[in-house]
Amino acid sequence: MDQDRLEDTIYMLAKRGMMENGETNRVAFSDADLQGRAYIISLMQVSGLEVSVDYAGNIIGKRKGNNPDLPPIGFGSHIDMVPNGGNYDGCVGSLAAIEVVRTLNEAGIQTEHPLEVFIFSNEEGGVMGSRALVGDLKEEALGVVNSTGYTMREGINRLGGNADLIAEVERPEGSLAAFLELHIEQGGILHREGIDIGVVEGIVGIKWWDVKVSGFANHAGTTPMDMRQDALLASAQFILAVNEETLKMDGKQVGTVGRIQALPGAPNVIPGEVQMSLEIRDLSVENMEELFKSIEERATSISRETGTTFSFTPIDATSAPALTDPGIRQIIATASEELGLSTKNMQSGAGHDAQDMARITPVGMIFVPSVNGISHSPKEYTSPEDMANGANVLLRTLLKIDASW
Amino acid sequence: MDQDRLEDTIYMLAKRGMMENGETNRVAFSDADLQGRAYIISLMQVSGLEVSVDYAGNIIGKRKGNNPDLPPIGFGSHIDMVPNGGNYDGCVGSLAAIEVVRTLNEAGIQTEHPLEVFIFSNEEGGVMGSRALVGDLKEEALGVVNSTGYTMREGINRLGGNADLIAEVERPEGSLAAFLELHIEQGGILHREGIDIGVVEGIVGIKWWDVKVSGFANHAGTTPMDMRQDALLASAQFILAVNEETLKMDGKQVGTVGRIQALPGAPNVIPGEVQMSLEIRDLSVENMEELFKSIEERATSISRETGTTFSFTPIDATSAPALTDPGIRQIIATASEELGLSTKNMQSGAGHDAQDMARITPVGMIFVPSVNGISHSPKEYTSPEDMANGANVLLRTLLKIDASW
Repeated sequence: MDQDRLEDTIYMLAKRGMMENGETNRVAFSDADLQGRAYIISLMQVSGLEVSVDYAGNIIGKRKGNNPDLPPIGFGSHIDMVPNGGNYDGCVGSLAAIEVVRTLNEAGIQTEHPLEVFIFSNEEGGVMGSRALVGDLKEEALGVVNSTGYTMREGINRLGGNADLIAEVERPEGSLAAFLELHIEQGGILHREGIDIGVVEGIVGIKWWDVKVSGFANHAGTTPMDMRQDALLASAQFILAVNEETLKMDGKQVGTVGRIQALPGAPNVIPGEVQMSLEIRDLSVENMEELFKSIEERATSISRETGTTFSFTPIDATSAPALTDPGIRQIIATASEELGLSTKNMQSGAGHDAQDMARITPVGMIFVPSVNGISHSPKEYTSPEDMANGANVLLRTLLKIDASW
Repeated sequence: MDQDRLEDTIYMLAKRGMMENGETNRVAFSDADLQGRAYIISLMQVSGLEVSVDYAGNIIGKRKGNNPDLPPIGFGSHIDMVPNGGNYDGCVGSLAAIEVVRTLNEAGIQTEHPLEVFIFSNEEGGVMGSRALVGDLKEEALGVVNSTGYTMREGINRLGGNADLIAEVERPEGSLAAFLELHIEQGGILHREGIDIGVVEGIVGIKWWDVKVSGFANHAGTTPMDMRQDALLASAQFILAVNEETLKMDGKQVGTVGRIQALPGAPNVIPGEVQMSLEIRDLSVENMEELFKSIEERATSISRETGTTFSFTPIDATSAPALTDPGIRQIIATASEELGLSTKNMQSGAGHDAQDMARITPVGMIFVPSVNGISHSPKEYTSPEDMANGANVLLRTLLKIDASW
């Protein structure tokens, strides 16, 4: 594994879409995305991979195995960014995958299984490429416009895909032996605790609700404090209750109120209505349900005390938890140990392409530290050592799976 | 005092601007306002008043006194409405003032002091008429457009005033012996407690602040609960603290957070910044300062506990408290007692023309109950008995002041 070469490719990729201020903007479907993909394709070709772009715009690089009857082992990530994003989210896993292939080439290693490197298209805009690959990219989604102004349908065609034939990219269950993804940890746990490698137990499920609190709007000057039905005061109690109930339960679940509006919204009117979002994430559906139930109970008692009413409307933007394969987790831990690297079992609070891939094949995810847990920001940074550690664990895990499965 | 006649004039005025649904819309400067004012002017003329419209659009009806050397006693209110307002706010005090004159006529009573009935222009749009009368209508204000689409300058001219000569309407301090205003109580205290008459101790001062809470925006999925600097969680604590500190102090002060925005405002992002309004109202400037100080202290400790920072920016939309005259308060209480009416000393949480008039003359304010405290709404309602009670107290107070001052 060539740490300097890996670091060089990070900078070479970062140049695709770099602006005058030195930050890179490479949202899916943008000209910068096209430039980044061209660089990746040439790097894959230099690495001896047989490169193609599927109808969903995924870049796929194939390497033959000794046994063509075995299903391929897949690995990779994505190179598109959120607006105002950073150079490590997705890129580390993508370039490490190619570095793994170059290392295999240089060591003259031919695996038993064929290998497939996946650079998924438009991960940040709804895991588009991986979703297409597992046959779950909905027709409605194709009309969604991202910050480039292109619809997903137009974007797919820009990437060299074909939105009309997208159903054909679906891979059946069992068509891959396994899928591995290396990624920066987007929380700050590994960095804070000084741990080298995160062994991902799974990618959390997400549930969203619209919460509406109804009180009674009234003149803030003429309505005494004890005659108010203040929807914002009740909402403040609710926000604290969400935090308390989430902290009270054992586990790593998170609960967040991120959006709030008080109506009518004037300084001199007691709010008669508040609209908020509620989000719960956890690896366990049961935990999520239990947490929501306890939050609902708190809302009921706040409602009674404040003379307001609460209603919860589930939002259809939710996703189910995806567990990684316990056998692969064990292999990642062993590989890390052999390399002298410390590990921590952890969940991924963010969604990843591996979450979709888990529907058709056993998946493993390897996290490396991101300084201060910063992500989706130009300040995102992972050291060359940590990137190389991750790539080495990826390579070793791949070889162990190849040898034993 | 003719209760039925008073009630009839309420309905006659309500017809000026009545829409198909039976509700009345009579915003200052609208055609409905012009129609309502024409009705008032004719009613004043029928009542023997010498009517004029000053350069600020105030309608003024004069009645001679026995002693022309005495300064006049003023009384009255306004007939313009907020958009979607009701038929009692301002109208009760305006029509009761005219009913008082008619009763004096019928009883053949000539007061010692001259009398002046004031129907102030555009009260709801910033106490325009009374502000001009005390020389405090700013040049900037004349450019403000209300919901009719007219600027204040255009509106004044529509009412028969002359915006260019507005400085000439200013009355010097002492030019009136007193000013009295009857008004519906815009809280629900009198109605709830079954009390006939509110003796207003003063009109509260108002202070506004923009409150900014800065935390750290972060991924709601990847940031563990104990690593968050959630500006909305800190704001929720703050909203509860405002309520607690306001309730904790003796007195009738009110504290309100009416507007709130969390940034970036997405369900899956921990809020990094919150912007809120804070409003404090009280009769005492010292109490307002003390309350703000204790709220600030709470913010400091919330800031420490949550890893956020609070900043407070005073907003220039504030007004000073205006106390009513203690002698007049006593007279209102005595007059009510003689009429067999129950009273309660109270503050006015809303602004009124009397607040401006207090700068040039001793003022008294009489409140009558509004059912459920509803105001600025088509549902506003005050019973004919309560209106007549108020008018009787107004008449008796006027006569007592006339006899003793």
